[in-house]
Amino acid sequence: MKWYFVAALLTILTSSQGILTTLSQSNGRYKYDYATIPFLAEIFKLLVSIFFLWREFNSSSPPRMTTEWKSVRLFIVPSVIYLVHNNVQFATLIFVDPSTYQIMGNLKIVTTGILFRFFLKRKLSNLQWMAIILLAVGTTTSQVKGCGDVPCDSLFSAPIQGYILGVFSACLSALAGVYTEYLMKKNNDSLYWQNVQLYTFGTIFNMARLLWDDYRVGFEKGPWWERLLNGYTITTWLVVLNLGTTGLLVSWLMKFADNIVKVYSTSMAMLLTMLLSVYLFSFHPTLQLFLGILICMISLHLYFAPVHILVDLPVASKAASSTLKEVTIVHQGGE
Amino acid sequence: MKWYFVAALLTILTSSQGILTTLSQSNGRYKYDYATIPFLAEIFKLLVSIFFLWREFNSSSPPRMTTEWKSVRLFIVPSVIYLVHNNVQFATLIFVDPSTYQIMGNLKIVTTGILFRFFLKRKLSNLQWMAIILLAVGTTTSQVKGCGDVPCDSLFSAPIQGYILGVFSACLSALAGVYTEYLMKKNNDSLYWQNVQLYTFGTIFNMARLLWDDYRVGFEKGPWWERLLNGYTITTWLVVLNLGTTGLLVSWLMKFADNIVKVYSTSMAMLLTMLLSVYLFSFHPTLQLFLGILICMISLHLYFAPVHILVDLPVASKAASSTLKEVTIVHQGGE
Repeated sequence: MKWYFVAALLTILTSSQGILTTLSQSNGRYKYDYATIPFLAEIFKLLVSIFFLWREFNSSSPPRMTTEWKSVRLFIVPSVIYLVHNNVQFATLIFVDPSTYQIMGNLKIVTTGILFRFFLKRKLSNLQWMAIILLAVGTTTSQVKGCGDVPCDSLFSAPIQGYILGVFSACLSALAGVYTEYLMKKNNDSLYWQNVQLYTFGTIFNMARLLWDDYRVGFEKGPWWERLLNGYTITTWLVVLNLGTTGLLVSWLMKFADNIVKVYSTSMAMLLTMLLSVYLFSFHPTLQLFLGILICMISLHLYFAPVHILVDLPVASKAASSTLKEVTIVHQGGE
Repeated sequence: MKWYFVAALLTILTSSQGILTTLSQSNGRYKYDYATIPFLAEIFKLLVSIFFLWREFNSSSPPRMTTEWKSVRLFIVPSVIYLVHNNVQFATLIFVDPSTYQIMGNLKIVTTGILFRFFLKRKLSNLQWMAIILLAVGTTTSQVKGCGDVPCDSLFSAPIQGYILGVFSACLSALAGVYTEYLMKKNNDSLYWQNVQLYTFGTIFNMARLLWDDYRVGFEKGPWWERLLNGYTITTWLVVLNLGTTGLLVSWLMKFADNIVKVYSTSMAMLLTMLLSVYLFSFHPTLQLFLGILICMISLHLYFAPVHILVDLPVASKAASSTLKEVTIVHQGGE
């Protein structure tokens, strides 16, 4: 399977996630407990991974598996980071409004690039750095509040704590991604065995979260397992299935591609969702959405296109190598 | 003189032009006839060019000059294009509001690139095309109406004629620039002799325009030469001087650099003016201004930076050529 096929599928499914979530609401609110969605998605991912691992066991070449606790325990880390991240997110929203929070969320594209470079020691060219910054700028541009949009949020006026927490949140989000990539690539273990470890801890942490939510309200609505599927419709199940599938795709990308590919997929998905919302939910299309899409398309091209496609001048009758040389000189001249 | 020095000076002076023009108003309106400014600027440019041409005559190597009418008459064309452009501009504003007009004005960056390619037969790499599109996207982004800005213009709701005229206007603006570059570079004539021809016709056309303005109101305010300097202050004279000087710099760039350099200078000047207005006229800084500046900076870098700076990976200990080869492969791999 090619990485760009998986990335395209991830874009489409992530984008449907937003649409499906909106469709699963009735009269603008959820009839089910939203916190049950990631829990059931973890269960789904775990079951799928166990199934594929079992198939590998029954194949001619059994899966490579590292089973020492010293290795297994590392798979707790992503769950811990997500737990901290959720709480930082909550704390940030005390200081800043949701749309400022959304705008700051684009920082995670840049922090992912930085951690990718320094934690995973992956080298990026200046062109690729600029592409990453452009991706963040493009997604931010698409989210700029349009003229007449209500409420009119004051972007630069939140207390400083809000911005510090926002940056911290972007770092944690990037760290979770980069750490997962490190886990998946650190040895040749079977992807499904790595998934089983990841999702087992994921399930436990999500279960603990549901329990904690119950505890905070003094179990007044009863324990979570008694009302787990309350208000679930077909659409709700599709949301679970979709979230589970995107999780599996991300995990595949972490092992066979990288975090930057994932960041491009999810950013493009965000723009696709906005574009689809114009048709599906008759959102007002803004100039900034159009500009943001253009910027992100250019960013995508700058990051992934082969260098010769970018820098060659339209000269037909020359050998590739001599063309490249000439281009460099012309380009250095600056005109 | 290096072209980037001239380009930087043009940026600073073009930017001051906006500031000076605002400062020359009293209570938000002009006390003088604004149409007299370009006329006097033409006179200034003509006098300066005559002076330098006269100096060349007295030097050891007299200037190269083509004086046949067949060549001289070509210098009328830019003035004619500007005349048509002014009228198209006027017609466009019947259909669209000024801020939509301003947004559409950024199209001239792209049309300049296109005419530059097809009229002057100058080749651009994909990277440079993307840089040009990003420059237009960046300047447009900085102009996106912020939340709460009044009046709330409806960008996509003008009659279709407005948009067609806007595109036509962008083409004319680009044509004027590209044609002037063609004139300046078509032979080795002295820059000052070319300027004298250009500005003589410019002066005549500007004079005709003042006369036409008088004629339209039935000479009720008297002929233009009787009230030419009415309401002029020191600041007004600075506006004239500034406009004249920027004109001379553009003319120099057309001969020794090119239209793309000019387009970058004036776009950067627009952003600089907006940035300075935040301090000088306490404009509210918007997120989109910040994003626009970032996009244009990246665009500038993409267009003018030598290719090896853009695509080399941070490898210290290898020869340049082998690095370039390796980069191409890594980049093609896409991760």
